[in-house]
Amino acid sequence: MSSGTIYGVGLGPGDPDLMSVRADRLLRTARHVAFFRKPGRSGQARKIVEGVISTDAVEFPMEYPVTTEIPLSDPRYNALLSEFYEDCAQHLKALAERGEDVVVLCEGDPFFYGSFMHLYNRLRENIQVEVVPAITGMSGAWTATGDPITWGDDILTVLAATLPEEVLAQQMAQTDALVVMKIGRNIDKVVRALKTAGMYERAWIVEYAQMPNQTVCKLSENCPDFTPYFSIILVHGQGRRP
Amino acid sequence: MSSGTIYGVGLGPGDPDLMSVRADRLLRTARHVAFFRKPGRSGQARKIVEGVISTDAVEFPMEYPVTTEIPLSDPRYNALLSEFYEDCAQHLKALAERGEDVVVLCEGDPFFYGSFMHLYNRLRENIQVEVVPAITGMSGAWTATGDPITWGDDILTVLAATLPEEVLAQQMAQTDALVVMKIGRNIDKVVRALKTAGMYERAWIVEYAQMPNQTVCKLSENCPDFTPYFSIILVHGQGRRP
Repeated sequence: MSSGTIYGVGLGPGDPDLMSVRADRLLRTARHVAFFRKPGRSGQARKIVEGVISTDAVEFPMEYPVTTEIPLSDPRYNALLSEFYEDCAQHLKALAERGEDVVVLCEGDPFFYGSFMHLYNRLRENIQVEVVPAITGMSGAWTATGDPITWGDDILTVLAATLPEEVLAQQMAQTDALVVMKIGRNIDKVVRALKTAGMYERAWIVEYAQMPNQTVCKLSENCPDFTPYFSIILVHGQGRRP
Repeated sequence: MSSGTIYGVGLGPGDPDLMSVRADRLLRTARHVAFFRKPGRSGQARKIVEGVISTDAVEFPMEYPVTTEIPLSDPRYNALLSEFYEDCAQHLKALAERGEDVVVLCEGDPFFYGSFMHLYNRLRENIQVEVVPAITGMSGAWTATGDPITWGDDILTVLAATLPEEVLAQQMAQTDALVVMKIGRNIDKVVRALKTAGMYERAWIVEYAQMPNQTVCKLSENCPDFTPYFSIILVHGQGRRP
């Protein structure tokens, strides 16, 4: 019996209509579907494929043992997550060794800050793994603003809001166009860094890009309440435009 | 009679299977299809949709009056391109005013260094324009290398190879992960900047990402002849990975 394949399938920003043709086909025919979620939640990735995957598919939710309860700097964080990814990888490996193909759902693009990468690195030596790229959340977000992100020779910098404030501000001051991911509890720090870098007035925040509950707002215009966890902050480049 | 809509449809990196479900549907039903190309060429965007768009579709090739014959810094460059984009926009506007929908083919993502943006800015005030985001060429390229581009808090910087060498080197020295677009004639300059920044040994070049003629090569390993025009240079981030 030949081994199965693990597919890391990017779902794009959240609208099933923005999944790739290949992702759509793999999902509709998948017998095994694995996805990450927080305990007690249905999971954003799983929500996106509701109505796309078969009701007969065997689902394997992979529940993070920790998200923001322990700081990233605590060694227990890495140890817990490492054990978790190892367990998940072993489960997927066992399925593949039984000849089963498994689709792993990935929000956005699998190789761009994705949790799937941690499974991929644990499986790639022993198992056939295929990665299906996807529209990034940031593409979904800049499209939602109705303005192009980069023109001509614009420099684009992508930052994680988890970085120290001085690093954020310094990087912001040296770029033309900006994307800030992983906003969450770091929103106030990001706002201060944007102000230091003189970018605050041009900054937009997009929540749930390309989903039914999408909101798009200029940061400086008293945005209504939002859940920064699924938000991306953007500053558009101003480069050459004939 | 109601006006038509101009659709800026991102095609992704080049494999029709990696177009979005929405793009695929719009293309298969399109009556008018516009696309950029160099004079005398079939055009990369048009090639990608061969066999996807209807043979009955009315095609409108938009031929650049100039690509690399005049330096970007020459005022004639901007003047010629500005007139060209204006003419193209007027043609599309006239079609829309007659009630026709038009699909404009965009390589990669329309709002990420795309020529379509120049039509978009000329049309958006008067005509209904819808933009369909897509997988960027850089996502196609990093997927092709088989290694994730960004981990944890990695900073990603996207540079155009047309920037001055000292700007390239300085930006490279301050990032974790790197994408360099628009390589073309600037390949030697980019290599020098990578060496200055200490990134050369980790740099990859991907040509024709996700196309049948794709090549993936570490820059330092004497890559075979390639056409740098459709190439992207990448350096992968090394961030946190539990």
